[in-house]
Amino acid sequence: MHKHGGDVYRQRYRMDYSVNINPLGTPEPVMAAACEGIRHSAQYPDVDCEALREKLAKAEGVKEEQLIFGNGAADLIFSLALAVKPKETLVPAPTFVEYEQAVRTVDSQVVYHKLRKENGFVLGREILEEITPRTDMVFLCNPNNPTGLLAEKELLLEILEKCAACKALLVIDECFNAFLDRPEDYSMKEYMDSYPNLFILKAFTKIYAMPGLRLGYGLCADPALLSRMREANQPWNVSIPAQYAGTAALDETAYVKRCRDMLSGERDYLKKHLKELGFQALDSQANYIFFHAFPELGRELADRGILIRDCSNFVGLEEGYFRIAVKTHEENKELINTMKEVMKWQRQL
Amino acid sequence: MHKHGGDVYRQRYRMDYSVNINPLGTPEPVMAAACEGIRHSAQYPDVDCEALREKLAKAEGVKEEQLIFGNGAADLIFSLALAVKPKETLVPAPTFVEYEQAVRTVDSQVVYHKLRKENGFVLGREILEEITPRTDMVFLCNPNNPTGLLAEKELLLEILEKCAACKALLVIDECFNAFLDRPEDYSMKEYMDSYPNLFILKAFTKIYAMPGLRLGYGLCADPALLSRMREANQPWNVSIPAQYAGTAALDETAYVKRCRDMLSGERDYLKKHLKELGFQALDSQANYIFFHAFPELGRELADRGILIRDCSNFVGLEEGYFRIAVKTHEENKELINTMKEVMKWQRQL
Repeated sequence: MHKHGGDVYRQRYRMDYSVNINPLGTPEPVMAAACEGIRHSAQYPDVDCEALREKLAKAEGVKEEQLIFGNGAADLIFSLALAVKPKETLVPAPTFVEYEQAVRTVDSQVVYHKLRKENGFVLGREILEEITPRTDMVFLCNPNNPTGLLAEKELLLEILEKCAACKALLVIDECFNAFLDRPEDYSMKEYMDSYPNLFILKAFTKIYAMPGLRLGYGLCADPALLSRMREANQPWNVSIPAQYAGTAALDETAYVKRCRDMLSGERDYLKKHLKELGFQALDSQANYIFFHAFPELGRELADRGILIRDCSNFVGLEEGYFRIAVKTHEENKELINTMKEVMKWQRQL
Repeated sequence: MHKHGGDVYRQRYRMDYSVNINPLGTPEPVMAAACEGIRHSAQYPDVDCEALREKLAKAEGVKEEQLIFGNGAADLIFSLALAVKPKETLVPAPTFVEYEQAVRTVDSQVVYHKLRKENGFVLGREILEEITPRTDMVFLCNPNNPTGLLAEKELLLEILEKCAACKALLVIDECFNAFLDRPEDYSMKEYMDSYPNLFILKAFTKIYAMPGLRLGYGLCADPALLSRMREANQPWNVSIPAQYAGTAALDETAYVKRCRDMLSGERDYLKKHLKELGFQALDSQANYIFFHAFPELGRELADRGILIRDCSNFVGLEEGYFRIAVKTHEENKELINTMKEVMKWQRQL
């Protein structure tokens, strides 16, 4: 059973609000580079991703050997599970479901740290108590998926220290960090060199709108962990088009800025209108918004050609929770108008 | 350490004989389809590979639900290891190294069935004795890599039955089957429906010359195994360009025939000349030839811009063993001429 958004292959739709991708679409130079990569695909991929590694290390300000690449970030989540083989893994609930799926392949016990509705799904200091010497691995998504909420650096640092004391690996998924107004204020990258038990997960997928090409990466200062991860995967996991696309994407700084500038206003626009519609929307800082409405909203919108993410299958959530992407103003206006139509129709029942 | 051929990224070369890829290059329509796929890569890949699945099921004459797709065949080898979690795995030596690497990630013991030099590295009935109730998984590559030798169906059927009796999964890697003069004479596909403990591994990589795009697949009649394999991997493991390329590749029957016709003669040409040079070449039926020369041959050819596969790091082999691809006549002539130069130079020492 498909547990995610973005399954546009078996549904008719005109707008996909179920995945959190840069609404400006794949940059043209990135697509051109990927096509150029296809011209070279009668060769095996470079197992070291050398050209991409060199450029990304500069862009991230890290050492080349602190990078590891994957067939999307999801590939690295599975490599991490295999490299660590945790007996006990702590994950918040709700959060991205692949962490749990990956560690279950190595028969890890999964402990949920429940993010409470009463606390607005905010990650709080209570999580520190759940990190114990039995904990082998902790996954945190920041901003969290599906809530869009951010954890502050101070709390993350406390968690990181507790993990270090308990000999647990802390994986912070920063796949949506690049959509924030001030990404650097929330990235834990600066602690990487001091904490070899920190692994930061990132992706080209979302910010460069290329999920179909599959390219993710990790940052970590523990060479032994990176080496175990490589052993737990095939050497050719990153395709040539993905390597070419990634290398070209790193030049797209103007595109990323244009996206951030646009999102900032659109996020507010959507939150305001969701509230006006009577839905409870969380104060997301990401490129998606989590809200509570009524259980049938997803189906009603789908009937009108708009896919949104029904979040009722996330651990810790019930029916009525949804996530929408933040897209261009024209699309967002159409979404809100369609939601208004649905509400009008509902009131007439 | 890179254990394979095809590492053309850190060596200067003019001809790569170290990988076994269709020498006719990626078909133009396949590249065009992959580029078209890039235009759609702002979406997530279809987790079910529906279009590709439908067409491939027809081409292979199997049911759609008997197919599973991977980010290259290597991806599926790792999924198999995770789905089966074998305690004991039997692999021939020498053979493709990824089987062993994959099962080691789940801490399997690896039992080698040694293919003996004295027997010309042929797979014989002795392997039957090594399949015991303790065996959980057996990997066989047919034609074998690096030897290029074929196992007969009668023997494979005996092995399959022994595996069934011992409750072991038999994985037959048929990635090079399409290069044979009569592929159907050696494929075990016809036994799939009667033996749910048979998994056949195949790839688009080699026959359509698209290793940089990553697309492999498996055939199996055990839905429970396929389901466990899917659980052990991310849902989006096959990129959109790969799905588009694969779907287009299935129309390339004329291209495959042209390749087979050419290989048949070139294989003989190379074997004849290798023998004339004094090297011991096995009677390969595949698109690559395994031979014994002197340990420095690889380096001497590399100095002259030609990469060949030094096989001394395969388990069960020592220095002096090499594998070369079979390529176009012009290239093969140049390879042989360069080898002659090397030999002439050696005699002058």
